[in-house]
Amino acid sequence: MKNSVNREIPDYLLKDGNEIFKGAYANDGKEIVRDTPTIKSNIKPRDTKLVENLKEAIKKTGLKDGDTISFHHHFRDGDFVAAMVMDAIHELGIKDLFICASSLGKAHRNFVPMIEDGTITGVSTSGVRDEIGEAISEGKLKNPAYIRSHGGRVGAIESGKVKIDVAFIGASSSDEYGNASGINGKANCGVLSYAGVDAKYADKVVVITDTLVDFPNYPHPISSVDVDYVVKVDNIGDPAKIASGAIRMTKDPRELKMAEYCAKVIANTEWFKDGFSFQTGAGGASLAAAVKIKPYLEKSGIKMGWAMGGITEPIVNLLREGYVKYLADDQAFDVASVESVYKDPAHFEIDSSEYANPLNKGAYVNKLDYVVLGALEIDKDFNVNVVVGSDGTIQGAPGGHPDTAAGANCSIIVAPLVRGRIATVREKCTSITTPGETVDVLVTDYGVCINPNRKDILEQLKDTDLPLVSIEDLVKRGEEITGTPDDIEYDDQVVAIIEYRDGSIIDVVRKVK
Amino acid sequence: MKNSVNREIPDYLLKDGNEIFKGAYANDGKEIVRDTPTIKSNIKPRDTKLVENLKEAIKKTGLKDGDTISFHHHFRDGDFVAAMVMDAIHELGIKDLFICASSLGKAHRNFVPMIEDGTITGVSTSGVRDEIGEAISEGKLKNPAYIRSHGGRVGAIESGKVKIDVAFIGASSSDEYGNASGINGKANCGVLSYAGVDAKYADKVVVITDTLVDFPNYPHPISSVDVDYVVKVDNIGDPAKIASGAIRMTKDPRELKMAEYCAKVIANTEWFKDGFSFQTGAGGASLAAAVKIKPYLEKSGIKMGWAMGGITEPIVNLLREGYVKYLADDQAFDVASVESVYKDPAHFEIDSSEYANPLNKGAYVNKLDYVVLGALEIDKDFNVNVVVGSDGTIQGAPGGHPDTAAGANCSIIVAPLVRGRIATVREKCTSITTPGETVDVLVTDYGVCINPNRKDILEQLKDTDLPLVSIEDLVKRGEEITGTPDDIEYDDQVVAIIEYRDGSIIDVVRKVK
Repeated sequence: MKNSVNREIPDYLLKDGNEIFKGAYANDGKEIVRDTPTIKSNIKPRDTKLVENLKEAIKKTGLKDGDTISFHHHFRDGDFVAAMVMDAIHELGIKDLFICASSLGKAHRNFVPMIEDGTITGVSTSGVRDEIGEAISEGKLKNPAYIRSHGGRVGAIESGKVKIDVAFIGASSSDEYGNASGINGKANCGVLSYAGVDAKYADKVVVITDTLVDFPNYPHPISSVDVDYVVKVDNIGDPAKIASGAIRMTKDPRELKMAEYCAKVIANTEWFKDGFSFQTGAGGASLAAAVKIKPYLEKSGIKMGWAMGGITEPIVNLLREGYVKYLADDQAFDVASVESVYKDPAHFEIDSSEYANPLNKGAYVNKLDYVVLGALEIDKDFNVNVVVGSDGTIQGAPGGHPDTAAGANCSIIVAPLVRGRIATVREKCTSITTPGETVDVLVTDYGVCINPNRKDILEQLKDTDLPLVSIEDLVKRGEEITGTPDDIEYDDQVVAIIEYRDGSIIDVVRKVK
Repeated sequence: MKNSVNREIPDYLLKDGNEIFKGAYANDGKEIVRDTPTIKSNIKPRDTKLVENLKEAIKKTGLKDGDTISFHHHFRDGDFVAAMVMDAIHELGIKDLFICASSLGKAHRNFVPMIEDGTITGVSTSGVRDEIGEAISEGKLKNPAYIRSHGGRVGAIESGKVKIDVAFIGASSSDEYGNASGINGKANCGVLSYAGVDAKYADKVVVITDTLVDFPNYPHPISSVDVDYVVKVDNIGDPAKIASGAIRMTKDPRELKMAEYCAKVIANTEWFKDGFSFQTGAGGASLAAAVKIKPYLEKSGIKMGWAMGGITEPIVNLLREGYVKYLADDQAFDVASVESVYKDPAHFEIDSSEYANPLNKGAYVNKLDYVVLGALEIDKDFNVNVVVGSDGTIQGAPGGHPDTAAGANCSIIVAPLVRGRIATVREKCTSITTPGETVDVLVTDYGVCINPNRKDILEQLKDTDLPLVSIEDLVKRGEEITGTPDDIEYDDQVVAIIEYRDGSIIDVVRKVK
């Protein structure tokens, strides 16, 4: 059956409450009964939650074949926790696990043999890259992987679609009762936003830290009232990789040009006024947009009310220089943001439900004025693909892309027209992650293109010196440069299901022949 | 049927999951399936939650006859919110409501005619005083009132025993999305701890404030993701009564003597060491104990790890003078504490589940070393009554009394042997709120009495100059002064059910003849 963005979804997937995508706002106002954790109450006053080692903790949780466990990815490529938990589980011989991760990548390469031997048979994640991405793309996982946005992951958990039996939460610091955070440790990741919903909805919660502090650890985005066991290990991660300093300002003139276009779009639209809100990703041009906006703020005297995201150094600088009042942080992308959160009193942590969950009573994304996002591909209907490479393999992450695009008053996609020999703007995307109805402006190095359904934005930009172009022109220009791409040949096997943030199926990824 | 503290509980109450009390720790380790709120998801990005007035908000919630609504009491005697909500509901003609309040008192006097006319037919509260206390004592409420400790209230809500249809949360400040707090307003109450569970478990949540601020309000102990509607009113309360400066240091030599005994008990027992934890109430002698402990800290060089409670000025002073590292605040009792929370970075808010809930994975009370508590009466088995006056009428509050007594390593009750012509220490209490097995030390003006089941404490205190006495001696001494009290004559009607923190029935209050 084809869904509303014209993607073929096999009928056999439309069971167990799985529905096809019917539009970005089709499920607004739906009533949700929240899921219920079963908790063992009332540890006795003198009891400790400290368990000798990871294996003992796993045994105490009662984890068994067929269960669902969860991880967060705030330690990013420097994460040791997920790998050590899975090694322990593997040694204990527990099989057929469903992994509900907030993202998967380089740090999870030891999952691959466990996918092959049936230890791991299902996955839900907001991003898949590197070795585990390859394994899933090759169809090695027994069941199709679910790819969900950051908000969609929370919605799936809160609505009971994913029932976490045991959440394993790596924390930079914790007391022995489980008050845990991404600071105060020897390997700080800043915030633990993605783990918030896991802590609240999992039946059992294990905190793993290398820095035990006195009760009460403060701040504690993960509260001890949600934690069953605490395990101290030697090292939870490699601080250099948790928040690498590698996110640097681009010097690529093409990216800088696009960033300037983004800033100009923002400065010339109606939401650019005192108190406006802003989010940008960590990609070259997106990040540069956070810098390019500054002269417009200086000149106009306008100040941002708040910025959100994926916080990076340029955003922290805007805070410290007084250009923005608050930073709402769901992920610290670099050393500067890790060191700023909680220390700068206006830089606070929000959990991923607050950030992006479409099934709560209104997430922060709904209050966004501008978001600047990247794209692997964008089609003539402004549908965006950020998950599947043009060769058909999974190598990306929806992250908060569909969430922020749906929420923001003005969502801006920034992407070069062509990457290498591949057109980014094209007749048809290899896959769809974010529906075009939520995409308002496309900024490329070949001009700025406004979604025709946003006549208001077109009206506001038509008298600027921005080089406005149509999407058809961009598609044609791209094809002129790269030629028409060959169709990819697929196998029947669905290796991944891409859910829209409301839980409907917006696309599937098939195994490449 | 008699329960384990020898109180007669009518069999007809033992239905719908109501059980008799079997001991303070009898339900430890019970498995609880958390309750499920039904929420309407996904307000659209540009929607506002701001509703024109209270009546419109009530209509939007769909509130109907027979529903349960909730209030918190952080505004204390200065609260305008509960009264104005009930006036609006009354005008709308909605009947047969169950009120789940964190406490009831002078601010709720307009509830009395609504009890009489059937608007209010049931109540759950952690305290009942003043006019509404009299009305309940007189048997005017259709159904017996449930009196639950602060922790017990959370447990009742989280376990689904009380299902809140609509929570009305007065807030000192809020943005129009519902991020709300007890600071940043014109009538500040400091924290909103008791409202935390209401926000998370109620189907509908209405925030009522007189100070609207820009999104995102920060801090926001009540998160917008849990809030349906926001109403701006002129005045939520009288700041002078919200946190009156009236809590002053006692000059009563009897109270000062008892406070000194408390401090000496603490300073001579094993938990008095670096990092120890401490809670005290706001009563004369309890409050004075927070002052009397200071010389012992000075002399010993020992520092408290954290203090909790009911925060008051003497505790804030200890923080500022470096004698305690953290304050965990679930209620701000005076101007000094309202002004300190969040401003002093080590003075943080905890919600009432974190504070005292016996049905989560371990509340802060479990980590307490010392708690100093008051009593209306205490019997020869150390059972304590803090709810029912010696004349049989309801005029008190369990608050966190049973919670902290159960959790602390050393729970100290401080009370004069005799009040007016009434003995405080007596053969038998008029009612029981806190079981004697959780009471360790009784400090009176006639000496200090150790619960015989705490031989460890007796051993540690026996060589001090504290005047140690037996409970039997105190009972005898009290009777010598006051004579044997006449038995109160009761009607059959049960006007209130006193639940222990685990939800079992520890006592009932009958109507006085």
